[in-house]
Formats: sequence, structure tokens, C-alpha cells
Amino acid sequence: MEVKENMSVLDLIEEMGKSGVLGAGRVSKATQLFADSIKDEDTSIFLSVAGPMVPGGLRKIIFDLINDGFVDVLITSGANITHDLVESFGGGHYRGISADDEELQKHGMGRIGDVYTKSHDFEVFEEKISEILSKIAEKKKIISIREFLFEIGNMIEDENSILKIAAEKGVPIYAPGIIDSMLGLQLWMFTQDKELHLDAVGDMHELSDIVFDAKKVTAVLLGGGLPKHYALASNLLKGGVDAAIQVTMDRSETGSLSGAPLEEAKSWAKAKAGSNLVTVIGDVTIIFPMMVAGAREIIAR
Amino acid sequence: MEVKENMSVLDLIEEMGKSGVLGAGRVSKATQLFADSIKDEDTSIFLSVAGPMVPGGLRKIIFDLINDGFVDVLITSGANITHDLVESFGGGHYRGISADDEELQKHGMGRIGDVYTKSHDFEVFEEKISEILSKIAEKKKIISIREFLFEIGNMIEDENSILKIAAEKGVPIYAPGIIDSMLGLQLWMFTQDKELHLDAVGDMHELSDIVFDAKKVTAVLLGGGLPKHYALASNLLKGGVDAAIQVTMDRSETGSLSGAPLEEAKSWAKAKAGSNLVTVIGDVTIIFPMMVAGAREIIAR
Amino acid sequence: MEVKENMSVLDLIEEMGKSGVLGAGRVSKATQLFADSIKDEDTSIFLSVAGPMVPGGLRKIIFDLINDGFVDVLITSGANITHDLVESFGGGHYRGISADDEELQKHGMGRIGDVYTKSHDFEVFEEKISEILSKIAEKKKIISIREFLFEIGNMIEDENSILKIAAEKGVPIYAPGIIDSMLGLQLWMFTQDKELHLDAVGDMHELSDIVFDAKKVTAVLLGGGLPKHYALASNLLKGGVDAAIQVTMDRSETGSLSGAPLEEAKSWAKAKAGSNLVTVIGDVTIIFPMMVAGAREIIAR
Amino acid sequence: MEVKENMSVLDLIEEMGKSGVLGAGRVSKATQLFADSIKDEDTSIFLSVAGPMVPGGLRKIIFDLINDGFVDVLITSGANITHDLVESFGGGHYRGISADDEELQKHGMGRIGDVYTKSHDFEVFEEKISEILSKIAEKKKIISIREFLFEIGNMIEDENSILKIAAEKGVPIYAPGIIDSMLGLQLWMFTQDKELHLDAVGDMHELSDIVFDAKKVTAVLLGGGLPKHYALASNLLKGGVDAAIQVTMDRSETGSLSGAPLEEAKSWAKAKAGSNLVTVIGDVTIIFPMMVAGAREIIAR
Repeated sequence: MEVKENMSVLDLIEEMGKSGVLGAGRVSKATQLFADSIKDEDTSIFLSVAGPMVPGGLRKIIFDLINDGFVDVLITSGANITHDLVESFGGGHYRGISADDEELQKHGMGRIGDVYTKSHDFEVFEEKISEILSKIAEKKKIISIREFLFEIGNMIEDENSILKIAAEKGVPIYAPGIIDSMLGLQLWMFTQDKELHLDAVGDMHELSDIVFDAKKVTAVLLGGGLPKHYALASNLLKGGVDAAIQVTMDRSETGSLSGAPLEEAKSWAKAKAGSNLVTVIGDVTIIFPMMVAGAREIIAR
Repeated sequence: MEVKENMSVLDLIEEMGKSGVLGAGRVSKATQLFADSIKDEDTSIFLSVAGPMVPGGLRKIIFDLINDGFVDVLITSGANITHDLVESFGGGHYRGISADDEELQKHGMGRIGDVYTKSHDFEVFEEKISEILSKIAEKKKIISIREFLFEIGNMIEDENSILKIAAEKGVPIYAPGIIDSMLGLQLWMFTQDKELHLDAVGDMHELSDIVFDAKKVTAVLLGGGLPKHYALASNLLKGGVDAAIQVTMDRSETGSLSGAPLEEAKSWAKAKAGSNLVTVIGDVTIIFPMMVAGAREIIAR
Repeated sequence: MEVKENMSVLDLIEEMGKSGVLGAGRVSKATQLFADSIKDEDTSIFLSVAGPMVPGGLRKIIFDLINDGFVDVLITSGANITHDLVESFGGGHYRGISADDEELQKHGMGRIGDVYTKSHDFEVFEEKISEILSKIAEKKKIISIREFLFEIGNMIEDENSILKIAAEKGVPIYAPGIIDSMLGLQLWMFTQDKELHLDAVGDMHELSDIVFDAKKVTAVLLGGGLPKHYALASNLLKGGVDAAIQVTMDRSETGSLSGAPLEEAKSWAKAKAGSNLVTVIGDVTIIFPMMVAGAREIIAR
Repeated sequence: MEVKENMSVLDLIEEMGKSGVLGAGRVSKATQLFADSIKDEDTSIFLSVAGPMVPGGLRKIIFDLINDGFVDVLITSGANITHDLVESFGGGHYRGISADDEELQKHGMGRIGDVYTKSHDFEVFEEKISEILSKIAEKKKIISIREFLFEIGNMIEDENSILKIAAEKGVPIYAPGIIDSMLGLQLWMFTQDKELHLDAVGDMHELSDIVFDAKKVTAVLLGGGLPKHYALASNLLKGGVDAAIQVTMDRSETGSLSGAPLEEAKSWAKAKAGSNLVTVIGDVTIIFPMMVAGAREIIAR
């Protein structure tokens, strides 16, 4: 690898590709595969996002990928959806706070690593989301999670929201574990005296149609958890994905799916025999922006 | 630490406690806290289980903890429930197979680390579970996940099943991400021509009652994921757990809840100020059996 | 796995062996291999110890293994040797201190994770070791590291010292990185006005004789670093070890030897084709005491 | 973070700095600190390099940093020195090989992760290095490791060699664990019938002078091991470094120095109170090229 002044991100990634080994080699392969998958009109991209990636600064990057038509299906956690909405309602994610966790609690702050949230922002979130839930409940009593998120996306006004752009662009968002989040908690509060059922099973009819209609699928898996499993498992009925990239810090030895090698997915027919599988071990907030910058540059050439 | 022939597990853990530092110190503190929590009649134990812990050999250990009244609430993944049922229906978990993932797929085997499953066992599972789903659907059209698992537990005959013993002993099982599993897939298949809605929100009414009725709560968190988050978040409304133990290999630096230090839960009022929090970094299939053996020996004294 | 009251450590490990998968399976295999290697009179055991294992509470365990003739060669860091001597000279390792690192420094305490040391103990160490260095320098001007440690072992009076028991039992200690430690620093101070050369190369003549004389070698590798590399590389000229166990938390993906899979050693002829290689991912202060207790029980049967 | 086409590496790092949290925030801080340290004429940079960083593609990057006067002291492993020389003597590091480790051994290939070496290259290395050792032994019988590496650097002809450029530029290279490497092995072979003593202690006199002459020191620590410890410990006598950056995948919980938080160094006076300390958790072959590209761009502005 040679590193000079004023390299573009892709220049750097290409140097990593010349070395071609260890982490540098994997970043290069992942970036190329991501760009190839975007460029290939026959390939649908399933992006799974676990971990605090909206609080961690990836909101705009994900927004732009959807806006540019580079993502076909988004699968994420209730937490990322909640944090997208917190920002849409005027709240934020803060940093540079120095206090221990008991003090934070006294001052109405919650901590996610070195990201901080304010309870006031969640109060605004509660107020705003309960209005939205009322409007949704007026329209439907049983709603799939995907539709539910689509309805929310349509009802908010923030032009930077992942939910909103996904609704506008017709990119479905799946969140199989949505109930286990602040949004899930609000839903519970709401349903203590009103009726609104989330139909998790309902999503699967639609998602299976998407899978069957896709000529090829590349799964881009940021972190593990339900989003990773759901992204891969939804491709099971069609023999698995054609390609996959995962970025994770989880280990494989415990047997957990979150850290499992992508090869393991082949045994379950969640990845096809011969599929192109690249794992990058690293922090998503570092690796994914790099991959996106590199892939965008490849595409723009 | 001194290690001799014929030490009991507790003897060894006590030696670790004499050293009192690094991993050995943490195992000792965790075991003592677990035993104290079991012995204290005012303490309810919430056990969360993520990762392939039934395939990984913990089925009997979890069964016995429930059978002995040592666990008050179980929170786990759809996968562990599926694997409990696979064993109940005569299937198994296999080892010592030597083949690559593409060959495994051809031979109808799925891999979880070094644990192997047979597609035949899943076929039996499909057949049996569809009969059960039919019976449940005859009784109810909308059912909470906890009730759904209770019904299944009551309908199976295997005397070694976690689901069955939990049903018998009245220990509720929560599985907020159940849809994202083989059981979830069967549910989807079933609902293509029949009606049965899982009501994830429904669980929260009941669970909040359990939390409010508990004088004290100790959370025992095996792995991260939804089970960890749900176990802690369900205690939010009452100001957090009084004590918690987590066993994990996930890292804290990515910000993901799975690897988050327990102290972070204090900022969110998911753990009380002054609560007793012990993290052991290690493989659950090693650490938890050790802790259970040690805690049982403390209790039996 | 079944876990009951009053299990011996070996009972628990045998339950892990019945499961036979993930971490539990690896602990079972490692314990059996360790016991078999001890029992086999044709097998020499090379024990490498990296990381703060004397501060971490393993001093007595290593002492006893040497005293019982279960270890043939010990390879460790200058730090572990320093800490063995600190204890021999009346110093200690402390715990339960609550202060930040800048405060610790002001109060003359050094931190290793949650283990604390006192600068006073290092002052005593300096005084005592300089007397010993003077005595050694009177006898020899150029000395191999192994001989140097043998001389120190012979000159100290502490009946619990690893250095002393190794000297008494004729177990050689190698410490290829010894210079990079407090003991190395003292050696430098001493040689500012006196003459004493450590001959690192000198060890290799002797060590190669040990390797060639051994019928079979099992390497037991606690942590990585120089001790792991040296233990394996010393067996290179004879085609590699016959068996190896490693216990580590380091990852393989970075390419560093510390986290490298043992299989990689086969490509370098540091492990023989067909050799029995077991890796346990975990904290050495938990896993090794467990393995030793289990192996001792197997041997005592 | 916003990611567009044709961003420079620094543009991307600045976006990471705007987010400022989790891994992205750490990369931004580390890059800024690295650039500031290079630009500050009063600051000496101690670069420690552990792990297979020459095989991993960092050779040219390290070469250029030395050539440009951006590194004042290099501390590395015997392995990296060996691999630098292997390349200087016409050998290489290979990739894309598909064979198991026993087959690799039969075909004369050694593996380091996904990097491959050829035994033929090591044979050439042996021949060439023995000539160099002869020449050095003619000049000196006892030589410090730093001088030894300086002599080798002067005797080789490869214009891309780290050893050569360091010798030309007067940048000292320390390798306290040099004996534990292929180069160490050759030294042993050589001294079976000739005389040449490496004086590890000898380096410390000189290194302490460098430390005392430096107005300020920033340690840049790639990986852990002896290089990290030596870099920090050499600053002990002057109260510690003024700033440090570490890039590592090792964990802190085992207590090993390799994964220890930099703050711990404050307790030992290896880092000054108030020193600027940044840890990035990640693969060095990804993170360091990125940091170097970013820092070069800051400097060039």
C-alpha cells in the first residue's frame, strides 16, 4: 500500500486492494462487491442495520442510499427507527458529556457508548408519536410492521428522515423486533385504551414476494441481531442470497448468528452455493462510510 | 488460587474469589450474586437467553432451573424455542461432522458453529407444529406470544422440554423476536390460509404487572440481543433492576446494547442506582454451567 | 449438560464433554488432552504464559504444576518473572481500589486491569534484585537468560516462588523478552557501572537439545505474545509439536500470531501434520484453573 | 456523516469527526492527534509496530513515514524485520492460495492469516543474512540490537527497505524480542561456530538519552506486544508520554498490556497526567493507512 496526500477514498481502498490481505483486503473486496451490486440492475440490495447506527451518525448515509435508489429493502431495529423519529421531532444525539451513569440518570440523560440522549427529547417523541398512532388506528386496527412504518414515514415532515424517504421512494422497512424499543413501549401505552395490532406475520407474505421477484439479491449486513437473521432467512425459500457483505465486531466462536461466518449461511440455503461472501471485522461507523464513499466513486466513474 | 484433585466446582470458584481479580474474580462475584438472588425470596429472577444455547447444550440446565423454581421469567429467542421443540419432536443436535457448508446443504444439514442439524428433523418439526398451530387457532385468533408459548408447552409431551416445564410451573416465556425463526416461518405458512395473530404488545401488559409485583429483580443475561434488551427494558417503569449478571463475548466499543456495560443501564433507569452489576466476559456454554453448579452448591449448604 | 449440587470440577467438564460443542466442548477436549499429556511419560509439556498471570492469581497453580513434575519447560514474560519476585520479596498484588489512573499514580500505585501494585513493593524489589545481580555478576559476565533465571531462583528464599521451584526441580524457564520488563530495567541500571550480559541466543542451543531429546511435545499456550511464538518455534527444527492447547481471547482476523489458529502452525512445521490441536476462547484466569482441576482429577483416578 | 462521490480521505475523516462518536469519532481524533504530533517540531514520534504489518502491506507506508521524517523511533518485532529483509532479498508475500495448512507445509508455504510465504524465499534469506552476519561479526563481537539493525540496514541494497531507510535517515529501530524470529534463529545458527552477542541492555542507554532529549513524545502504537510495552516503558523515567494513539483489536478485560486502555499507562507514569490518549478499536491494516492519508492531507494543507 502506498499512501499520499490528497488521495480519494477510492484511491486508498484500491491501495488496500493491491495489498489484498487481512482487513485491508476485505475492505477492498467488500467495496467492489457493494459497487457491483448497486450497478447491476438485476440485483436487489437488502440492507440490515443493527446497533445504534442512527445515534452513531449513519442516518444521512442511509438516507442518501435510499434516496439514490441504492437500497431495495431496509431491515433494522426498533431502536434505530425510534432514534430516526427522535431527530425528526427536533431531538438530537449529544456528545462530549462527562458524567457517570448514575449522574446521567439524575440529569435526564441516557447513554449509548459515548452518545448521549435527553429525556426531554423522548417526551417530545412520546407526544408526537401518540398523535401519529391515533391517526393510524383510525385507518386500521391490524397492520403489518412494514405498513405501520410506511404510515409513520408518510405522516412526518422531516426531510432528513429515513422513514420518510423510504416511504416516498417505496423502499420497504422491516423491523421484526420493533416491539422491543421505545416505539414499542409507546405502542403498548397507546393500546392500553385503544386498539391497534401490529401483525408481524403479515410482513412475510409481502417480503416473500419481493424475494421471489428479485433476480439476484445482495445482502449488506451491518451488525448482527434480528436484522441480519431476517435479511438472510427471508431469502431461504429461494435458495439463498447471491452475495453478501457483513461488517461486524462479533466473534464466531460462540455460535451466535451475529458473529457467524457468512459461509455458515450456505448450509441453511440462506446463501447460494458459490455466492460471493465478504466479511469485514470492524466498527461499522468506520467501515461502512468508507465502503459507501468508495462504492459511490466507482459508480460515478 | 490453589487447585487440587477432587475439588467441587464451588471450591474452585472460591479459589477464584480469593484471587478476586480479572475473569476469575468476576466469575466468583457472579456466582455469589446468582446464589444470593435465588435464596432471597423477595427477588425475582429474569433469565434472558440469546444465542444457540439449546443447541449448545444448556437445555437441561435451563429446564432444571425452571423446575426448581429458580427462574421467574424466561426471555429468549425464537431459535431457542424452535430447537427446544425440535428435540421434543424427536430431533437432535449433532456434532463431529466434517464437511464444508455447501456439502452440508446438499446432505440436508444446517450448521451452527460446530453444532449440526438435520433437515429431516425440521420436517418433523413442521408437521408437528402445524398440528399444534391448528389446535391453538381453534381456541384463539389473537394471542400474546407468552400465551402462545404456554399453549404449545401444554400440548407437547416431552418431559425434558423447556416450554413444557415452564407451562407446568407457571413461568412465563417471552420471545419478542419470535417471528424471526423457523417457528415464525411456520406461523407464516400456517396463516396463509388460516387466521392466527400473535400480539406482541399483549405481553407487555402482563409483564409490567410482574415487574410491579416483584419486590426485587435480578436479571441474569446470557448473551445480548433482544432478550437482554427486553429483560432490562421491562424493568424501566419501576426504576430498573436491583442487580444484574451478564455473560457475553460482545465488545462494548461499538455502542451495541449486546456488548454494553451494565452500568450504561443505570443512565436509562433500567438498572437502579447502587445496583449490583457483574459482567463476565466469556463463552456462555462454559461460564453459565459453572455458575449454576457453584450457585447450587451454595444453596445446598 | 446436567448440573447438580456438589459436582466435582471434572464432573462438570464431563457434562461439557457430553454436549461436546462450542466453548464447553473445547474445554472438555483441552482438559482431556492436558491430562493425557501429563500422564504420558513420553510427552514433554511446554507451558507458555503471557499476560499478567502472576498478578492474576495463577502463581500457585503454576508453582504446583512444576512441583509435581507436570511441566517440563516454562516460557513466560519478564513481567511475570518480576511479579513472582515482587511477591518473593514481600510485596503483593492488591484489589478493590477505587481511584482513577492519575490518582493512582499520585498514590504510588500501578494498575493492571483490576489488579493494583504498590511502588513501595517495587522499591524493595529494586534493592533486593540489585544484590542478586551483584552476586550473579561475580560469577559470570555473560549468561544465558535461562541460567540467569536459574541463578535468581537459587538465591531467593521464598518457598512459593515459581523461579525457586523451577530451579529446584530443574525446569528451565525461558523469557526471550525479559529485557522489556521491570527486571530488564534493573538490569540496565545495574550495567551502567557493572558488567553483565544476557545472552538470549545462548538459550537456543540448550532448548534445541531439549526439543530433540523429547519423544513427544505438547504445548500448553496461555495467551499469545513471545511466549506462544517461542514455544512453537522452538519445536520447528523437529517438525513441530505433537499436540497443543491454547487459551486466548485474541482474534485470528488481524493475522497476529497471538490470536492465530493453531492449525496455522502446521504450515510452518511448528505443529506436526495430524497433531491434536485445541483452542479455547476465553479468559485464562477462568479456563486454566478449571482445566488444571479437571486434569488433576483425571490423573488421580 | 455525509458521504459523496470523490471525497478525499480527509473529507471522510472530517465527516466522522462531525459525528464524533463511537469508532468514527475515535478515528477522527486519532488522525488529528497524529497530524498535530507530526507538525509540532518539539514532538518526537515513537512508532511501535506489532503483528504481521510488513506481510500485511504496511511496508511502504512505514518506509515513507521514516523517509519524510515523520517517525523518530521505530519499535517492532523480529518478524517484521525478517519480512522486510525477505522482500529486500527478492522474496515476497503471496495471496489467493487455497490449500489447508498440512498441504501448505508439503508445498513449502507458510501461512499468516491469508498471507502466504514461500520456503524458497526463506532459504535465500538464510544465505544472504549469514553473509551479513559474517561481516558484522568481523567488526564487532558484542553489539546492541539497534546497532545490529543499523548495520544490516547499511549493508542491504533494496531501496524499499525499512531497515535501509531507517539507517540512512538515522531513525533508530528497536526490537527487544528480536531473538524470537527467523532472524533470531539465523543468529543462533551463525553463533554455533562463530562469536556475535546481541546486547539487549545496550539499547536502553541510548534510548533513555533519546527520551530525555525529546521535548515531547507521542507514541503511535500499532498492536500490542513487546513493541507497545517497550515504547511506553522507555518513557517511564521522564514521567511518561505526552500523547498516545493505539490501534488494536485486543480486549482490555484479560488484563494483558496488549489490550490495556491507554489510561492505565498513567498509573505507571508511562503516560503523563493530562496526556492526550486515543484508542481506536480496529484492524491496523485498515485504520492506519486511513489515519496516515488523513494526517498527510492535514499537513499538506
